[in-house]
Amino acid sequence: MNYSTLEIKYEGFVAHIVLNRPEAMNSMNPAFWTELPAAVRAIDDEAKARVIIISSTGKHFSAGMDLAVFLNMKEDFKGDPSRRAERMRRTVKMLQDSFTAIEEARMPVIGAVQGGAIGGAVDLLSACDMRYCTQDAFFSIKETQIGMTADVGTLQRLPKLIPIGMVKELAYTGRNFAAQEAQQLGFINEIFDDHEQMLSAVTKVAQQIAANSPLAVSGTKTMINYATEHTVSESLDYMATWQAGMFHMEDVFTAMEAQKKQQQPEFPPLHSAVKKIAQ
Amino acid sequence: MNYSTLEIKYEGFVAHIVLNRPEAMNSMNPAFWTELPAAVRAIDDEAKARVIIISSTGKHFSAGMDLAVFLNMKEDFKGDPSRRAERMRRTVKMLQDSFTAIEEARMPVIGAVQGGAIGGAVDLLSACDMRYCTQDAFFSIKETQIGMTADVGTLQRLPKLIPIGMVKELAYTGRNFAAQEAQQLGFINEIFDDHEQMLSAVTKVAQQIAANSPLAVSGTKTMINYATEHTVSESLDYMATWQAGMFHMEDVFTAMEAQKKQQQPEFPPLHSAVKKIAQ
Amino acid sequence: MNYSTLEIKYEGFVAHIVLNRPEAMNSMNPAFWTELPAAVRAIDDEAKARVIIISSTGKHFSAGMDLAVFLNMKEDFKGDPSRRAERMRRTVKMLQDSFTAIEEARMPVIGAVQGGAIGGAVDLLSACDMRYCTQDAFFSIKETQIGMTADVGTLQRLPKLIPIGMVKELAYTGRNFAAQEAQQLGFINEIFDDHEQMLSAVTKVAQQIAANSPLAVSGTKTMINYATEHTVSESLDYMATWQAGMFHMEDVFTAMEAQKKQQQPEFPPLHSAVKKIAQ
Amino acid sequence: MNYSTLEIKYEGFVAHIVLNRPEAMNSMNPAFWTELPAAVRAIDDEAKARVIIISSTGKHFSAGMDLAVFLNMKEDFKGDPSRRAERMRRTVKMLQDSFTAIEEARMPVIGAVQGGAIGGAVDLLSACDMRYCTQDAFFSIKETQIGMTADVGTLQRLPKLIPIGMVKELAYTGRNFAAQEAQQLGFINEIFDDHEQMLSAVTKVAQQIAANSPLAVSGTKTMINYATEHTVSESLDYMATWQAGMFHMEDVFTAMEAQKKQQQPEFPPLHSAVKKIAQ
Amino acid sequence: MNYSTLEIKYEGFVAHIVLNRPEAMNSMNPAFWTELPAAVRAIDDEAKARVIIISSTGKHFSAGMDLAVFLNMKEDFKGDPSRRAERMRRTVKMLQDSFTAIEEARMPVIGAVQGGAIGGAVDLLSACDMRYCTQDAFFSIKETQIGMTADVGTLQRLPKLIPIGMVKELAYTGRNFAAQEAQQLGFINEIFDDHEQMLSAVTKVAQQIAANSPLAVSGTKTMINYATEHTVSESLDYMATWQAGMFHMEDVFTAMEAQKKQQQPEFPPLHSAVKKIAQ
Amino acid sequence: MNYSTLEIKYEGFVAHIVLNRPEAMNSMNPAFWTELPAAVRAIDDEAKARVIIISSTGKHFSAGMDLAVFLNMKEDFKGDPSRRAERMRRTVKMLQDSFTAIEEARMPVIGAVQGGAIGGAVDLLSACDMRYCTQDAFFSIKETQIGMTADVGTLQRLPKLIPIGMVKELAYTGRNFAAQEAQQLGFINEIFDDHEQMLSAVTKVAQQIAANSPLAVSGTKTMINYATEHTVSESLDYMATWQAGMFHMEDVFTAMEAQKKQQQPEFPPLHSAVKKIAQ
Repeated sequence: MNYSTLEIKYEGFVAHIVLNRPEAMNSMNPAFWTELPAAVRAIDDEAKARVIIISSTGKHFSAGMDLAVFLNMKEDFKGDPSRRAERMRRTVKMLQDSFTAIEEARMPVIGAVQGGAIGGAVDLLSACDMRYCTQDAFFSIKETQIGMTADVGTLQRLPKLIPIGMVKELAYTGRNFAAQEAQQLGFINEIFDDHEQMLSAVTKVAQQIAANSPLAVSGTKTMINYATEHTVSESLDYMATWQAGMFHMEDVFTAMEAQKKQQQPEFPPLHSAVKKIAQ
Repeated sequence: MNYSTLEIKYEGFVAHIVLNRPEAMNSMNPAFWTELPAAVRAIDDEAKARVIIISSTGKHFSAGMDLAVFLNMKEDFKGDPSRRAERMRRTVKMLQDSFTAIEEARMPVIGAVQGGAIGGAVDLLSACDMRYCTQDAFFSIKETQIGMTADVGTLQRLPKLIPIGMVKELAYTGRNFAAQEAQQLGFINEIFDDHEQMLSAVTKVAQQIAANSPLAVSGTKTMINYATEHTVSESLDYMATWQAGMFHMEDVFTAMEAQKKQQQPEFPPLHSAVKKIAQ
Repeated sequence: MNYSTLEIKYEGFVAHIVLNRPEAMNSMNPAFWTELPAAVRAIDDEAKARVIIISSTGKHFSAGMDLAVFLNMKEDFKGDPSRRAERMRRTVKMLQDSFTAIEEARMPVIGAVQGGAIGGAVDLLSACDMRYCTQDAFFSIKETQIGMTADVGTLQRLPKLIPIGMVKELAYTGRNFAAQEAQQLGFINEIFDDHEQMLSAVTKVAQQIAANSPLAVSGTKTMINYATEHTVSESLDYMATWQAGMFHMEDVFTAMEAQKKQQQPEFPPLHSAVKKIAQ
Repeated sequence: MNYSTLEIKYEGFVAHIVLNRPEAMNSMNPAFWTELPAAVRAIDDEAKARVIIISSTGKHFSAGMDLAVFLNMKEDFKGDPSRRAERMRRTVKMLQDSFTAIEEARMPVIGAVQGGAIGGAVDLLSACDMRYCTQDAFFSIKETQIGMTADVGTLQRLPKLIPIGMVKELAYTGRNFAAQEAQQLGFINEIFDDHEQMLSAVTKVAQQIAANSPLAVSGTKTMINYATEHTVSESLDYMATWQAGMFHMEDVFTAMEAQKKQQQPEFPPLHSAVKKIAQ
Repeated sequence: MNYSTLEIKYEGFVAHIVLNRPEAMNSMNPAFWTELPAAVRAIDDEAKARVIIISSTGKHFSAGMDLAVFLNMKEDFKGDPSRRAERMRRTVKMLQDSFTAIEEARMPVIGAVQGGAIGGAVDLLSACDMRYCTQDAFFSIKETQIGMTADVGTLQRLPKLIPIGMVKELAYTGRNFAAQEAQQLGFINEIFDDHEQMLSAVTKVAQQIAANSPLAVSGTKTMINYATEHTVSESLDYMATWQAGMFHMEDVFTAMEAQKKQQQPEFPPLHSAVKKIAQ
Repeated sequence: MNYSTLEIKYEGFVAHIVLNRPEAMNSMNPAFWTELPAAVRAIDDEAKARVIIISSTGKHFSAGMDLAVFLNMKEDFKGDPSRRAERMRRTVKMLQDSFTAIEEARMPVIGAVQGGAIGGAVDLLSACDMRYCTQDAFFSIKETQIGMTADVGTLQRLPKLIPIGMVKELAYTGRNFAAQEAQQLGFINEIFDDHEQMLSAVTKVAQQIAANSPLAVSGTKTMINYATEHTVSESLDYMATWQAGMFHMEDVFTAMEAQKKQQQPEFPPLHSAVKKIAQ
């Protein structure tokens, strides 16, 4: 498949999605909103990759929503306001779904950020499992400063990631927050000197993860996401039900054997469900 | 669009989906699981229709899951059981999604049943807003009798529709329950003498609904579905937030004016969100 | 306190709120929306009454929202639609609160209906603990027929009271449903020949309840309402925590002693919290 | 194991727990509260039985909580009220756990009632999967009439079983409700002429259930209970996760083969987990 | 309106509530519990202010609950313990409501703390959106040390603000924690040298927020609070429904225009709902 | 009672559970899984202790699950996979219950860690109220590295304790994280130079807690745990209901009196519920 706003590269078990419109500061134009989820879902189902990295090109990670989208909307703000409101509700849900694809992928998704990550870019990053950045990175919940409530995920996911008192300061003011503050808040896992160093280090983390059983890692992602939204008691019950079918003694012995021999273990990949159904 | 397992007819504001494989007792073959949701989602987005009726042809509404699906699966039950389990989990979720499309449609979906509605057919009907049937209709949570736990919606939705003590008797035994018992339990709204009479009466109900503002009806569906899954306090808050944007004074005056003049009111249709995004 | 839309009478431990604008079919005018909750809250806090009956005068229980409210609103539908929407959200929440007062009262609230109970009247009745009516009573979720989604409680509470398939038919069509259908659905507990007979019978039920310990009855209301919104496990835990402080051995012995002597037991009343705080 | 308040009989795959203190109207004395859950849990873990019937002897099913328990408590109502309250909270939780054992058993539990089922007996029955009774059966949430809020499950489980408006009338008044009313409300599945006929019919239902795959039936119970406490979306997801491990193609083929041959299928039993851990 | 325990000052779009009983260490006397919520609700409805600052006078922010309240209560601890318990439950709920008013205000509420913030003061601050303090500030969940479980909000809100392991240490011991520890935990956003500097800096933050569209900021507060209590999926859906009515293209263009011209944008204020209803 | 895997010591109001199989790095063998919860539950019910410390002996806190358990399991991975899955689900639930006992104890439970805390040890520590460690301590969600999803509590409880982005990095990679990182993340409250110093300091914290009213501390634990799983509104309501029965004016006066006299207050202990029931 060909994309106009991003590129996909594979390195071993790591799929790398690269935003490649640096000349437009990787702003999120209409094509982007369908291409990103399509790319993530295809990688997920195929399951050749065991980790996904999302990075970007040029000076900035992404300038967020493309201005064209707003101008397009302006045209549209005429006529029956209630039916337009009803359509807008569905439009927002569709845009939100684009980033939910990241959350729903079976494998971890890592965001790697240089320069600015503005508005919609923070929404995207909030849906990733982990976030790493360069020293010069900065972030902004810009929507507030352009007169609107951020609506594609930041306000829904960030409060589960960093202290609420700080989420509010950042969201009410819309001010920039830089790499170091972002790390102290727990939004960023680690800061690197420059883009190259970051990509190299993040790839190592990805490989470390990809060396583990993809079934174990996928279960771990599902369980952690589940736990953030359920009681401990519900989460334990779900865990036990999951484990009933997914625990694979062979994987344990493969891992143990490899550790004894100080080798890399070799685990079979996950299956494609889409192909199976199409059968 | 052309479908191999169903047909779509429009009558005014009513879209009618007709299962049309009577020779195979409208069993749910692989094509059906993608065609039904595609049909529902297309009608929903286009919004020409304000109500959807799902009915069937031949002696029976539907025999449920096609045997071919099971035989296909048999082939597949070899190799690493955990990865197969992981794929099965996703396969089941995809099948479930087929019926969730009914629940997510903006307009009411009515099931009209003659003869047998077996296994998967009960899952489908449970996802409808209302259900009507003929005198000779009967239902069965057949899955239990063929050695498995029903997995595409019956056990999840029926307990919200009829008394739990009876859900359990019907689901544990897998026994047939006929039209009259189904109506007493609240599963069926009304029973009719034969197929023709049923379709004619159900169409009248559909037209009665279609005569109301499609925005008011759509809001009503969303609110009732929301209320079955949230506290009263959460549901009231959601209602107020919905109403803020969706209440349309024009519709109220259109309705009042028409009542005064004893005419049918004319409301504008809902909008397509998909077309808007593709713009 | 004096009310312009209702009257309060006390008979022993039973408080009786009577809507008394029969000439206007007890329509819900602006005054009503503040008077009803004020009346309920005052009776609740004072705790002289152990049951509240809400009944009405004239041919119909209530015609629902007064037309004046809509005309008033029309005037207002100009200018910045978003800020107006924000205000509307809060307005709807305030109107909803009027009926939530019924749900929050410590003592059971019984609705006694004659003739029509239209639109807002169904919202009111849905917030009551129990509903009784006369033979000639009928109900309608009229809002749908006048172009709007019902927004003060019907769609939030009715799905917890009667079968969902029927809630939907009634709400989508807005059609009338009469006493008998309402009873079969579980909305109405019992039907009586006429207004007088109904009030006499409902008063007897109220007295039967008032003869029990008001603390036991109040706990029962709180627990049932809680159970409709929580898991069994959460509800059991809440019950145990409640019982820890509220179980009163004296009441048990008072009750047992009275039963032995075949007398009416005498229980002390609940306390006023408002007075306590004002101390 | 020997019990003083009940007896266990096995008939094929059906375990039958019989309350056997008819001379004391099977009142719930201290021993009963530990014996009943012990019996249920033992049968559950051993998994020889695939259905459990709880019935009783003598004129009445059970008179509920034994008076001795109250007198015992009276003694205790002295000293520091807060610490006593804290202990009472834990005591109530322990009593509640006795009936929760019924809900947690892997196999369906059926209550078979003759004569009176008073107070605690309604709590017990509410925890059963299905309830059947004789013509002369009657029920009462007696706790209200003896000055207390029912605290071992009725108020938590009944609102999920029958219409809320009626739960409230029955719970506020504490009045008796007889077999027929109980059936109309959905509390009772079927009424039989006398005790003998009831036991014979209930045993047949139990055998019908026991003829199905115990894994399919157990999954069905778990799923229905889960669905009553979660959103449809959560329940569907849980279902898919359950099915991933529990779906057993062999059982499906066993069932199909038997149906073809018009024979009773033979399914392997569930396993004991307790024994496994003790290994 | 005149208050005996606090003063309200307006500076542009910032309302400033100042506790002004320094001689009594701004302890929370009976008047305070009604005046604070009255003040907050009035400012909220009037909507002249777009941010609220709560600060205090004298050496300490507040000593928490006034001793008089306890002595008053002592008097009261006689007679029927269960009815007293029932009243106490309602009294506690009313006290809690005083601080919930802060959470429910449409605009951000900022706490600015000097010196000690003891017991009830921590409850108050936990309900604020953000908290800033001076170097000499310290905090204590003092309730534990005076023999009671804190009951007006700290234990309910703090676990959503700072790491649970530390909430527990602080709440179990009741020990003081100073400005710096409070900031490291995420409870405090920033520390300032002295009271004057703090007020000046906090006012600047408030003005920065007030420069944004009040509708965008209010939506942001509502969404973040919602997200802390719901799943991501529910929160996204609520966001889309909110945005349908509240997104205001005019505000976006106002903001963009102002940015181009490097001017302060001018947004219209929110509306009063109370006045509207009283109309 | 005698234990083979741990020892219990009492020091005043502090119970100290010491893992005492240093020669096996305190790995979690079958006996451990029943002894730990038995010990915790006995201490809890007896209520002589007001705080529990769990510490260990030797170089490492615990190596996690004993290898023997896996080998035992291997044997078992034959035969009908679905019934084995069903048993595994129940087995996992039983193992999880062992650590849930820690969460359910009425008194705070403190984990004190030296050296490695690997796999199951992190599950155990996540269930404690607070965690302290020595400088040389390190932690690992080792399960991922041995080919499985951690299943006895880490993935369910850790996301409520430390930033999600870091939980995921640690859980996906399975890498070690040392004392300092653990403290920065909020997992560890404080780090000490060595084992002796840690035990002495942790005992002081425990005594500080034990000096407070055990009822106030127990309520605090219950409320904080409740708040992490419920909305603020539900938590406030639960708090008020708890306080109704548990607030003890005597404790407040005892505390105040002691503070005035600068003495240690003396509070009565909590009661045993088990003994009461057995009465």
